Amino acid sequence: MTSSIGNRVKIQLFGQSHSKGLGVVIDGLPAGEKIDMDKVEAFLKLRAGGKNPWSTKRTEPDVPTILSGLLDDKTCGAPLSVVFENTNIHEADYENIRFVPRPSHADYTAFVKYNGNNDISGGGHFSGRLTLPLCFAGAVCLQVLERKGIIINAHILSIGTVNDDPCDCVSGDCDTLPGCGIQAGSGGDLGHDVSQNIYDEFPTINKEAGERMIKAIEDAADSGDSLGGVIECCITGIPPGLGEPIFDNMESRLAYSLFAIPAVKGLEFGAGFKSSEMRGSEYNDSFYMDDGDVRTKTNNSGGILGGISNGMPIVFRTAFKPTPSISIPQQSVDLLSGDDETLEIKGRHDPCIVPRAVPCVVSAAAIVILDMITGE
Amino acid sequence: MTSSIGNRVKIQLFGQSHSKGLGVVIDGLPAGEKIDMDKVEAFLKLRAGGKNPWSTKRTEPDVPTILSGLLDDKTCGAPLSVVFENTNIHEADYENIRFVPRPSHADYTAFVKYNGNNDISGGGHFSGRLTLPLCFAGAVCLQVLERKGIIINAHILSIGTVNDDPCDCVSGDCDTLPGCGIQAGSGGDLGHDVSQNIYDEFPTINKEAGERMIKAIEDAADSGDSLGGVIECCITGIPPGLGEPIFDNMESRLAYSLFAIPAVKGLEFGAGFKSSEMRGSEYNDSFYMDDGDVRTKTNNSGGILGGISNGMPIVFRTAFKPTPSISIPQQSVDLLSGDDETLEIKGRHDPCIVPRAVPCVVSAAAIVILDMITGE
Amino acid sequence: MTSSIGNRVKIQLFGQSHSKGLGVVIDGLPAGEKIDMDKVEAFLKLRAGGKNPWSTKRTEPDVPTILSGLLDDKTCGAPLSVVFENTNIHEADYENIRFVPRPSHADYTAFVKYNGNNDISGGGHFSGRLTLPLCFAGAVCLQVLERKGIIINAHILSIGTVNDDPCDCVSGDCDTLPGCGIQAGSGGDLGHDVSQNIYDEFPTINKEAGERMIKAIEDAADSGDSLGGVIECCITGIPPGLGEPIFDNMESRLAYSLFAIPAVKGLEFGAGFKSSEMRGSEYNDSFYMDDGDVRTKTNNSGGILGGISNGMPIVFRTAFKPTPSISIPQQSVDLLSGDDETLEIKGRHDPCIVPRAVPCVVSAAAIVILDMITGE
Amino acid sequence: MTSSIGNRVKIQLFGQSHSKGLGVVIDGLPAGEKIDMDKVEAFLKLRAGGKNPWSTKRTEPDVPTILSGLLDDKTCGAPLSVVFENTNIHEADYENIRFVPRPSHADYTAFVKYNGNNDISGGGHFSGRLTLPLCFAGAVCLQVLERKGIIINAHILSIGTVNDDPCDCVSGDCDTLPGCGIQAGSGGDLGHDVSQNIYDEFPTINKEAGERMIKAIEDAADSGDSLGGVIECCITGIPPGLGEPIFDNMESRLAYSLFAIPAVKGLEFGAGFKSSEMRGSEYNDSFYMDDGDVRTKTNNSGGILGGISNGMPIVFRTAFKPTPSISIPQQSVDLLSGDDETLEIKGRHDPCIVPRAVPCVVSAAAIVILDMITGE
Repeated sequence: MTSSIGNRVKIQLFGQSHSKGLGVVIDGLPAGEKIDMDKVEAFLKLRAGGKNPWSTKRTEPDVPTILSGLLDDKTCGAPLSVVFENTNIHEADYENIRFVPRPSHADYTAFVKYNGNNDISGGGHFSGRLTLPLCFAGAVCLQVLERKGIIINAHILSIGTVNDDPCDCVSGDCDTLPGCGIQAGSGGDLGHDVSQNIYDEFPTINKEAGERMIKAIEDAADSGDSLGGVIECCITGIPPGLGEPIFDNMESRLAYSLFAIPAVKGLEFGAGFKSSEMRGSEYNDSFYMDDGDVRTKTNNSGGILGGISNGMPIVFRTAFKPTPSISIPQQSVDLLSGDDETLEIKGRHDPCIVPRAVPCVVSAAAIVILDMITGE
Repeated sequence: MTSSIGNRVKIQLFGQSHSKGLGVVIDGLPAGEKIDMDKVEAFLKLRAGGKNPWSTKRTEPDVPTILSGLLDDKTCGAPLSVVFENTNIHEADYENIRFVPRPSHADYTAFVKYNGNNDISGGGHFSGRLTLPLCFAGAVCLQVLERKGIIINAHILSIGTVNDDPCDCVSGDCDTLPGCGIQAGSGGDLGHDVSQNIYDEFPTINKEAGERMIKAIEDAADSGDSLGGVIECCITGIPPGLGEPIFDNMESRLAYSLFAIPAVKGLEFGAGFKSSEMRGSEYNDSFYMDDGDVRTKTNNSGGILGGISNGMPIVFRTAFKPTPSISIPQQSVDLLSGDDETLEIKGRHDPCIVPRAVPCVVSAAAIVILDMITGE
Repeated sequence: MTSSIGNRVKIQLFGQSHSKGLGVVIDGLPAGEKIDMDKVEAFLKLRAGGKNPWSTKRTEPDVPTILSGLLDDKTCGAPLSVVFENTNIHEADYENIRFVPRPSHADYTAFVKYNGNNDISGGGHFSGRLTLPLCFAGAVCLQVLERKGIIINAHILSIGTVNDDPCDCVSGDCDTLPGCGIQAGSGGDLGHDVSQNIYDEFPTINKEAGERMIKAIEDAADSGDSLGGVIECCITGIPPGLGEPIFDNMESRLAYSLFAIPAVKGLEFGAGFKSSEMRGSEYNDSFYMDDGDVRTKTNNSGGILGGISNGMPIVFRTAFKPTPSISIPQQSVDLLSGDDETLEIKGRHDPCIVPRAVPCVVSAAAIVILDMITGE
Repeated sequence: MTSSIGNRVKIQLFGQSHSKGLGVVIDGLPAGEKIDMDKVEAFLKLRAGGKNPWSTKRTEPDVPTILSGLLDDKTCGAPLSVVFENTNIHEADYENIRFVPRPSHADYTAFVKYNGNNDISGGGHFSGRLTLPLCFAGAVCLQVLERKGIIINAHILSIGTVNDDPCDCVSGDCDTLPGCGIQAGSGGDLGHDVSQNIYDEFPTINKEAGERMIKAIEDAADSGDSLGGVIECCITGIPPGLGEPIFDNMESRLAYSLFAIPAVKGLEFGAGFKSSEMRGSEYNDSFYMDDGDVRTKTNNSGGILGGISNGMPIVFRTAFKPTPSISIPQQSVDLLSGDDETLEIKGRHDPCIVPRAVPCVVSAAAIVILDMITGE
């Protein structure tokens, strides 16, 4: 009940930022599923750092070594396990934070929880690096889901105060089903393969907004500061009737998974917080028949009613706080001496993790949806 | 994995809006805990309808019948089970919606999931009435938590576009620890017993804002419409170190429980969505020593770092959509004939469920916190 | 994780021997299943006491009150909940054991676990009376399984040292598939409906052996003593391929459920303990083709290979210790004074619980099999 | 819910007999526990093959590579993960069984469950080789338990029809508490460190019986046949009060884990199946005071009453079927052609796996007990 999730398809993560290796065991995948490893690696590249202005200088080859679970590239029913080596390690960078916790990091809480036995180096098990095996699991689940006609897409809705155009899936104007209205740099144009946009490095619907976002990140980086943002995600192809009443409902299941991504501090479905300002007559999604299918004219519910999918796109937004690691000196305390301390963070860090978090959001959703749909 | 939650203290809900009875089994409570049933019933009154302008006309005595688990008012280690009778039932009100689902209700999705075998009357198992046993469980857990010094408070932050003052716990200016800065109608004054404010019927920090909220609800009701709102909740007294890394973190656990409350469409911790617009230097909560305790100057993290409590108040906000039941005619479909239909909803409903949802939010949090702290 | 079981179909028991009521919540049953309540009550009669020489003098009407989950006698997707009232209570019988634990009962361990807060009356939550809601759950699951062609049968293999004929399902000579070779009082004759024998009050294959068993129980009762025995159970109609590797295998799942029946101290599958004395060449179940189906010539494996069903009957045996409550005076201790004590047990008890345990064994198996097969 | 177990200390196994690697993730270990890797490797040697007449010719170095979870040899709170490479692989040995399942192996059931996608080589995920990571987990848990005063011991009670002396812990004559009466080759003598006997290669209480057992195994091997046996296990140092009522009781928890060991077909606690032949007056364990401690004169209950530990040694026996792999030709079927086939098993196998299963039984028990005691 700690670093694992799932009932039928179970995901167990392991590893620390600077341990010998890190990885994931995926137990319960349907047998006979072909896994395209090139596609998996392409997906993992989206969260890899070191290549652009908005990401950490730490570069890792991130080559997955499959230990078990695949036979001739197909799932064989046994748990699929994978390991990534940690190679690019600067342990010295973390000496000064051993007892002086970085503000808004997990250093202090991990110290208390584990009585000082926690691995502080690189954030240990709390490091964003653990999203690497999460994304591996997500990439695998995505391939299985895709064969069932389920597509998960996401775009950067905002970085700081710069906004992308919202996805049409909420307003109900999205005319792109099946598939999705979230099209990186396409302004909604459907001319290209929709399933590809999650493979964009900086996916926005409005290309020009994306450029302004990158500029904002560079500005923050120049002043030793950091930015947060919001990612909007849309899932299409889920048939109506998936989910459970009360606790195991789809919103609870997705929320449980999404809040496991470091830095997520908010989540909303459909119209979300804006719902609270709407009247019922304005909010309610009217039903209509569309060629034999029940559809709704708007999608303020984000595709979920009573915790169960209604056949419309599942739409949600996750808010990310700014990267806690900044170069600007900060106030902290020495946990041993009890003195107040000024802390200067060394090490390598992202001025904004939002772009690299897009595949994480997609993955956190994919593992839940596959778990829910398996055995239905 | 459906209507149950919890690992150590397990909650299993049962019942439908119009079934013979509904209730809850609470398994795993520590033995020897005195349960004050008067206090439980006082808490349940907060979610009872029929008494004021903003709630349904359905009135139920809501008297809990304890079947097992208590001996001389103390928990005896056996599962605590309780039943409430349903008495005030107007089944006829639901005849016209048997095959014509109400927009933004669970009627359609339940119909699909259960192949038409679901109990439509009063919303069946998806009814808000199921929050009655949830609140019973919450009331019990609150008493156990209180003995450990943990207090859960909440206030109505907004109804529609009318806002209450925010809780000081986020800004860090809250000088009320231990206890809580959320004081119904007190403007932050600490002159009275803080643990009582969750027993207010319409808890706001700013009394005058509360009056404007009630006025807004009455206006919506007059036009056959409904309103949503936001509830802010604050938990004090949780020691640092509670929670788990990655999936079983405190935010994921609370989110899983809170999204089980009908009509919740958004959730944020600490600065939440606003975090996404802040710079790291502005967002990060600096540490300082306070008489031997590690504290933070601000509380943008909402008391949770890396999924683990840091000793500061846990603060979160849940967004509620407007009540889907409105008197205004709406567009729907006939699931049998496949025709579009105009639906007029009869039955009794709340123009705004937010006031009655306050104890639900408190309860959903209480059951998770007690589960997490049991066996630590 | 205490008095509940199941992943997809979850069973939560509650109640004490002398609490106001006891019952069960069954969450996750497929919707639309007709439940024949007469058949349920007939099944419950098998574990009812008071009617024959081998059972307790305590008589209870055991009338189930369905609170929720059924609509027009069909499951509606919501948790099925049922309550039984406790009426025939002699609390005074238990005054002398409050601090003097009965040997081989749970009195002492419950006292320690719950710091003396446990309900001692009638054994509290540890009472055999809790098998009433277990059997209710079993009766419901049996009806759903039967519609899938799965039949669970059981007979009394031994009482003390008196043995029934073993079921032919192990030797492989059972020519009764589909259906089962366990035929109460039929000597293996297949002339009557096999699904009825679990509704016999004292089911043995060899009628005359059954009579000798009853005589042995009466002899033990006359001397204030008690007897144990072995129940053999056989499940037919399970398709090959059900179960999971390693931990969630069918033997582990069944064992987990069966050891929850009070007084079970041993369990074996197929040839069981006798396997340990056999050579591989003697034990191994050879495969052969039977009209297109893969079958085995013997069934020493009890229908399970690698934890997964192989299409042959599932066969297992559970050993019951003698009823711990006997009239003969016994040595115990006073938990308060620390003195040794001689204890004379009052109250009403069964000289042998094995006959009434037959529906319990069937039920414990039924809830596991339905859970495993749901969502496959 | 497949190859994982545990609520607080979770064990996730992965790997196949001939995959690149196999291993285990242990999540939830208390932080700060020193793990002596030499002791772990000494324990793993007990299940290693290739060194003696009774084990397979397959030899593997079985060197554990720790990927994460340890910092300076101490647990750091993060999941402990370990990988073993598979090196000594003869895939060709398994060509002839791809579609001709070996009797009493999992070949057929895995084929059905995974639609023929399962890894047949060496038994795949169903191989006894998966007990290597199980024993690793067990070895780690044993060290943590030992620090709490909990010792798990086991001896070979029988091989085929050759019997060792039973452990005195059942008769109650065991005068060795704390510690344990199971003393390899010691006849009960307490002159040496009791915690060492699980490190014996062929642990019996009666040395001469052990020699006859080895002779019996050699005889079976000479005729291309195999033998089973029974392992008796004894756990001392568990305080009274550990366990839960009904489903999560200690017998159910241990049973769930023990039946996960390949070839286990029976399990009994205390007097076990023999209980069924005893009278209550003979079976019941009388209480007495022993220097302030509550003890029982006999231990027919095997240390468990009502599913909860009573402070006496936990005693249980597991029955192992003979190794299914034998050289003698056997009858099987061709799953593709549907023809009956005579199968000759190549590959390397143990004439009797019981000696190598001793650490497996100890491990299966250790992981359950540590899980149960963590967070109490």
